[in-house]
Amino acid sequence: MAHPSKADVTLDKIVSLAKRRGFVFQSSEIYGGLNGCWDYGPLGVELLRNVKDEWWKSMTLRDNIEGVDASILMHPRVWEASGHVENFTDPMVDCRQCKARYRIDVLLDELSLKKKKELLRELDPEKFAGQQKDEYIEQEFSKLLDSDQQSAKMVSMVACPACGNKGTFTEARRFNLMFKAFVGPVEDSSAVVYLRPETAQGIFVNFQNVMAASRQKLPFGIAQIGKAFRNEINTKNFLFRTREFEQMEMQFFVKPGSDDEWFEYWRGERMKWYVNLGMKPEQLRWHQHPKEKLAHYAKDAYDIEFLFPFGWGEIEGVHNRTNFDLSRHEEYSGKSMKYFDEETKEKYTPYVIETSSGASRSFMAFLTGSYFEEEAPTADGKTETRAVMKFQPRLAPIKVAVLPLVNRDGMQEIAHKIEDDLRGQFRVFYDDSGAVGRRYRRQDEVGTPYCVTVDSQTLQDQTVTVRERDSMQQERIASAQVPGYVADKLRR
Amino acid sequence: MAHPSKADVTLDKIVSLAKRRGFVFQSSEIYGGLNGCWDYGPLGVELLRNVKDEWWKSMTLRDNIEGVDASILMHPRVWEASGHVENFTDPMVDCRQCKARYRIDVLLDELSLKKKKELLRELDPEKFAGQQKDEYIEQEFSKLLDSDQQSAKMVSMVACPACGNKGTFTEARRFNLMFKAFVGPVEDSSAVVYLRPETAQGIFVNFQNVMAASRQKLPFGIAQIGKAFRNEINTKNFLFRTREFEQMEMQFFVKPGSDDEWFEYWRGERMKWYVNLGMKPEQLRWHQHPKEKLAHYAKDAYDIEFLFPFGWGEIEGVHNRTNFDLSRHEEYSGKSMKYFDEETKEKYTPYVIETSSGASRSFMAFLTGSYFEEEAPTADGKTETRAVMKFQPRLAPIKVAVLPLVNRDGMQEIAHKIEDDLRGQFRVFYDDSGAVGRRYRRQDEVGTPYCVTVDSQTLQDQTVTVRERDSMQQERIASAQVPGYVADKLRR
Repeated sequence: MAHPSKADVTLDKIVSLAKRRGFVFQSSEIYGGLNGCWDYGPLGVELLRNVKDEWWKSMTLRDNIEGVDASILMHPRVWEASGHVENFTDPMVDCRQCKARYRIDVLLDELSLKKKKELLRELDPEKFAGQQKDEYIEQEFSKLLDSDQQSAKMVSMVACPACGNKGTFTEARRFNLMFKAFVGPVEDSSAVVYLRPETAQGIFVNFQNVMAASRQKLPFGIAQIGKAFRNEINTKNFLFRTREFEQMEMQFFVKPGSDDEWFEYWRGERMKWYVNLGMKPEQLRWHQHPKEKLAHYAKDAYDIEFLFPFGWGEIEGVHNRTNFDLSRHEEYSGKSMKYFDEETKEKYTPYVIETSSGASRSFMAFLTGSYFEEEAPTADGKTETRAVMKFQPRLAPIKVAVLPLVNRDGMQEIAHKIEDDLRGQFRVFYDDSGAVGRRYRRQDEVGTPYCVTVDSQTLQDQTVTVRERDSMQQERIASAQVPGYVADKLRR
Repeated sequence: MAHPSKADVTLDKIVSLAKRRGFVFQSSEIYGGLNGCWDYGPLGVELLRNVKDEWWKSMTLRDNIEGVDASILMHPRVWEASGHVENFTDPMVDCRQCKARYRIDVLLDELSLKKKKELLRELDPEKFAGQQKDEYIEQEFSKLLDSDQQSAKMVSMVACPACGNKGTFTEARRFNLMFKAFVGPVEDSSAVVYLRPETAQGIFVNFQNVMAASRQKLPFGIAQIGKAFRNEINTKNFLFRTREFEQMEMQFFVKPGSDDEWFEYWRGERMKWYVNLGMKPEQLRWHQHPKEKLAHYAKDAYDIEFLFPFGWGEIEGVHNRTNFDLSRHEEYSGKSMKYFDEETKEKYTPYVIETSSGASRSFMAFLTGSYFEEEAPTADGKTETRAVMKFQPRLAPIKVAVLPLVNRDGMQEIAHKIEDDLRGQFRVFYDDSGAVGRRYRRQDEVGTPYCVTVDSQTLQDQTVTVRERDSMQQERIASAQVPGYVADKLRR
């Protein structure tokens, strides 16, 4: 599915630009890469940091939210209490003949389109009788993959890719998505630790410690940014489904009964955050989890979905987790997770409203959503297509580029002087190679909001031009004013 | 060993304050904790972020350093190339009788003091003949642990703690300190991944990608902040030796021959960084690795050591890694890691000067080094001991506290107004409970550099007092000037 306002933005184009300009590289690329892992390059790390900093400020510069940074390795009982040891699983089958092992959705999803058509026709001869578009077949097939029952039926109908035998698969078994590691020198089950599959539990287990240290009273929240890991077999769509990713989570603890109100409040706040950072309302939508599909802990759950080049995908969940997590930790740890309300003298287990945003997914949404190709005038009065990243300036990796029009008459010295004035405060890029039009294009492509150009008039009156990325308008200001000008623009 | 300028700062005192005020909690504390893992609480996460931000700015706001953020999981060949699979090991023994397994240094270190004395006397009857202080015995014993040969001797002389038999231990074998996990559903050796034991390799494998994307020329550096993991058996000294920790590393790539000069440059820069952030020169010292103990890749190596309450400990290594890492990656990946020098038309493998700082260790150094207990005057003209964290203001978790002297006459409203003016820009704490002297003490203890107090004079002339933490001096300024005043102080 294409972006509504621009037809040609494919994921491949973004991935290629991301590598070429240093946003994202494949992890361990020189060794052929590691599936489901990515590295952020020089511009990517700045964009990611800016996204995370904006989130952190929006959360913790409030009087009722505290931050934490919990370790990735946690006590294994945490994941029993949370339900992950029991429930965080995918169904798998083994071939009885050759012992090969498959995750069911991967086994089925990798079938040829022809085979997928056959299966659909066998399952529903009427609906899939005629000639149907490939896209439609893929879409309908992918719907069936969501159903355990239909998947099991289809597995019984396909051959093992390894040995070619049909009907040899075992019943489905559940495979846990948590990465396991072993603490200490002996690899026995007593020393298992998991790489956390979500950051939320690091907040719940610290609820009492944070409340005591910060002297907060309900309602209040705890915010955290950190890595999480899932042993996904089916990694896909660039940064969208990966094995290692980063989350920005805030758990807001409230008195039971006030949870619906706070749920609505946080839904509003979170949607506003994305829009304030430049996402278009038409790129965003709410998806409410149907009541029958709610997670075991949830009373209500909405996802914020973003329109990626591959279609709509979740970038954040706002969920009412009730008192499930705190109650479970109380049960499993034997430590009270209750709150004593000094005003009403009541004692109760707080409800939790969770806002769980993917830092990696938000990064990808800002990257793909900011990318435009549009006609722009050239120096000789014609037009050309320019690629431009229309990042909100606070998110832009480079804030300002400094360009001497030509490399003579002392323009470079003046430009370097301006660069020096800016560098302590802002990420700045100095570029003196090639025609200035080319240099503007290079900055457009990475989303630099302001280009400062030193030209021959600068030599006479110490003014420079400042070109704004989106409008491509230039204005002249005194070169001494440049740092103040940029600071002022970024405050907006 | 005590801090030179203050006698009573024990690690226990810092650990207890760290928990009580929300700097650091034990990981998964409600489940009894996870050895070697710690969580940063509300104030800790801010201090840690401030340390990391200062480092990031000091590195990447230069025209010759680029940032990256590589994944924690990397291709397993990376760790073969780096030498970690082969060399990153500790010696272990098994008991032949009961099959129990021990790391040699742990086995020996957990012996009673009496037993340690016995062993020392057996090994060197002359030196340890008389009555010696317990501290001296522990110190001498711990020196022997550093020697593989002496350790092996001692192991042959002790009983197995599990079965009580003596002389039953096997020869020492090497145990790898990298955490292993398995990618994909099958736990076989082909799917092993390691949790990175250092962040440096994430920089080396991206050398060519970063150089191409950023158009940098030698000399230039790549900086990274991120988590690393080591399966330490012998975790100790709070945040000093942990299983999960964070590093701030910069690898600077230079032309061979210019490496000594750049090595000296970066030694100077890195020492300055700590001093500029408030560490006292007498709390810091250089430790040069003796030539015979240099790591296999190093030409020269200096550590910056900090005087912790438990003694001197490394907080950063500045190492000349030569072209070892790039050469090995070229060898193992088959991809060129060479640099083509356009000016001289030479092609060579760059040398690397590494500055590798522990974010967690620096955090601990700033925390313990900033802690003072000193006499302070009370309101009634006496003196009392105050605990104060003399953080450099840019590192302080809370920048300013706002305190209404009493909760009446509209002082709270004015104070809240000042709080609101500050909150968007700074981390601010509002406190209206208890005597103002108590409130100052609470802020001293967490290192808040400025306390703004609204008093009766405020009601008349809209001025407030601003109290500076270290001098405890107060000055009156107009309440509208408070945000500008604080911003100005923090810029220094």
